[in-house]
Amino acid sequence: MSTVLIIGAGAAGRVVVKKCLMNNDIFTDIHLASRTFSKCIQIKKECNDKIQIHELDADIVSNTISLINKIKPSLIINMALPYQDLPIMDACLETKTNYIDTANYEPKDEAKFSYSWQWAYHEKFKEQNIMALLGSGFDPGVTNVFIKYAADTFFDTIEKIDIIDCNDGDHGYPFATNFNPEINIREITQNGRYFKDGEWIEIEAMSVSKNIDFPEVGIRKGYLLYHEELESLVKHFPSIKQIRFWMTFSDNYINHLNVLENVGMTSIKPISFKGQSIVPLEFLKSVLPNPAEISTNYSGKTSIGCIITGTKDSKKITKLIYNVCKHEDCHKEVNAQAVSYTTGVPAMIGAKLMLNNTWEGKGVFNMEEFKAEPFMNELNSQGLPWKAIDCDSELD
Amino acid sequence: MSTVLIIGAGAAGRVVVKKCLMNNDIFTDIHLASRTFSKCIQIKKECNDKIQIHELDADIVSNTISLINKIKPSLIINMALPYQDLPIMDACLETKTNYIDTANYEPKDEAKFSYSWQWAYHEKFKEQNIMALLGSGFDPGVTNVFIKYAADTFFDTIEKIDIIDCNDGDHGYPFATNFNPEINIREITQNGRYFKDGEWIEIEAMSVSKNIDFPEVGIRKGYLLYHEELESLVKHFPSIKQIRFWMTFSDNYINHLNVLENVGMTSIKPISFKGQSIVPLEFLKSVLPNPAEISTNYSGKTSIGCIITGTKDSKKITKLIYNVCKHEDCHKEVNAQAVSYTTGVPAMIGAKLMLNNTWEGKGVFNMEEFKAEPFMNELNSQGLPWKAIDCDSELD
Repeated sequence: MSTVLIIGAGAAGRVVVKKCLMNNDIFTDIHLASRTFSKCIQIKKECNDKIQIHELDADIVSNTISLINKIKPSLIINMALPYQDLPIMDACLETKTNYIDTANYEPKDEAKFSYSWQWAYHEKFKEQNIMALLGSGFDPGVTNVFIKYAADTFFDTIEKIDIIDCNDGDHGYPFATNFNPEINIREITQNGRYFKDGEWIEIEAMSVSKNIDFPEVGIRKGYLLYHEELESLVKHFPSIKQIRFWMTFSDNYINHLNVLENVGMTSIKPISFKGQSIVPLEFLKSVLPNPAEISTNYSGKTSIGCIITGTKDSKKITKLIYNVCKHEDCHKEVNAQAVSYTTGVPAMIGAKLMLNNTWEGKGVFNMEEFKAEPFMNELNSQGLPWKAIDCDSELD
Repeated sequence: MSTVLIIGAGAAGRVVVKKCLMNNDIFTDIHLASRTFSKCIQIKKECNDKIQIHELDADIVSNTISLINKIKPSLIINMALPYQDLPIMDACLETKTNYIDTANYEPKDEAKFSYSWQWAYHEKFKEQNIMALLGSGFDPGVTNVFIKYAADTFFDTIEKIDIIDCNDGDHGYPFATNFNPEINIREITQNGRYFKDGEWIEIEAMSVSKNIDFPEVGIRKGYLLYHEELESLVKHFPSIKQIRFWMTFSDNYINHLNVLENVGMTSIKPISFKGQSIVPLEFLKSVLPNPAEISTNYSGKTSIGCIITGTKDSKKITKLIYNVCKHEDCHKEVNAQAVSYTTGVPAMIGAKLMLNNTWEGKGVFNMEEFKAEPFMNELNSQGLPWKAIDCDSELD
């Protein structure tokens, strides 16, 4: 019997709500809050009124505290924007409420991913006797669990990891982002980074690409990006010698992005417009299709996995663990596309494992710090089945 | 001895001010007014304080009337936005002040060029005993004069016209428009249109292109656009069987434009942004380089002309009349690029011919309704020398 408060009613928030409802033995009271109350109303309608909804500006800590005091949830599931992680964590500290999110904090005026800000909350969460689980989406999230599972199951030591993320879907729009465009574009326009032999190597944004054979999809061009799980995985698996993250983008997507960057529309530096200060990227977001509304005619699938090389009984082996998810199936099940689905389902699973005390701790944790098996089992039963296969060769 | 009030302190407005100063035997008192007073201050500085400046929102007729009553100009030179043509003409009617502009009125909420709105003022201007000269830029403007000159000099009847406009310059930016981006983009994203055998034929925007040999530049790809002078020329030269307008755009320009259109940034339909109504195209304008500030490193030239086919002594002949203008020369002379220069110089010439009574009339007029020769002579002495050559073949 648990009350949860889900903050954020975007595309992935909607999935979390619906998957929690499907697990109502655990999630008995589901509350949804968003700055944009109309989104809550819409989701409530889709859920036959089986949830309770609230208007909340989670930037303001005291507002979140008030709502928590009113609802008294066991857990906050943060599906809001990454900028809001810290204010929501502050509200959790003040009210001794457990916390889970899917994306690490980043400051609003700087496109920079780092766990440092949230890790700094570890002692405070520990003192308050509460738990925060960071990054329980697909990547980060499931990818961390895949690696933990591989380390426990297949390897004596893990040495090299390539996380490969392909969205081979077609939404039918000339240009649309699959999650919050602001966050999506910030992710891609910042410099790339990977870890090799004890050092972080920085590259110009989108300057390194490689043809990768994505399972059940085929060969697609992946670009080397920095992604937040690299930071926590390097910390928790000291044997890692090299770890990289690759994501596919179509030439059309890149062209659109280049143009928007060229003209200054992806900038997060406010400009003066008719006496008002406006961030171009925020304005761009408001003209682009809403990721929560593009699932209707979305075809194709996502294919996301980890290629892991290491040793077992002194022999070098490579394994690939992956999930493939069809946009159409997600739309049918929860009125969402696969990118939202693959983020929302693991958030629900992480919440479930916290609430039923399978994953326990006091302080701030990443996914790979817990036993992988219960999470891997849930993936299979909650709509994200995975496969682990032998690989002939690692990614060069 | 004439007092003029120039409204609009953009890139072309700056050229008009400076060219009027160079003709101070005619333009003895020069006033400049703009909504953005800082632009007036900048231009006044560049003119060694030899002009007087005023803050004016010309959307509000009573404001313009007040300023006119204060200054008592012989002529208003309207270098503001096309949306402002009618309110400024209303102020002229009220104060019995002569009027000249460079671009026809278009309603703000619809990208549609037509002289109809301004022609409808003819009787009112006539009654008030004042004159309005419409479209005294390069195209429209000089192009109309070229055709009038050709009709008077080379032909018995004119049958076919292709107006060809090439900017072969390089401003060094990934994407910039050469005049007000709002107007430039409205011009290009509306459907194309041309006149053939008594009918207007409409085509999808940018769907028809042709390799054209531009004088002193070479072969470049020109796109068929609708341009306002087609309407007045067809009216004033009933012998015309076909008239088209072609303008060059680089593939890079088109790609940028396509992307911006795809994502909705060129739309003139307001969207709701944080509770405010904002026109995407206006916001886009504010992130793009200011056309008044891109001349510094602008290289290359413009080449604009008219290919005219008709009969002389029952023989079919084709003539090309054109001007070539170098961006660098314009920058040196008046701190402007050639697109602003070729618009501003003809505005000054039209004003001069009105003020010295070479072009006289009561009512609303287009350029081709007056004798071409005095204007053609001014072009040669004011920085826009032209050539008329025989053509072997017309544009197919």
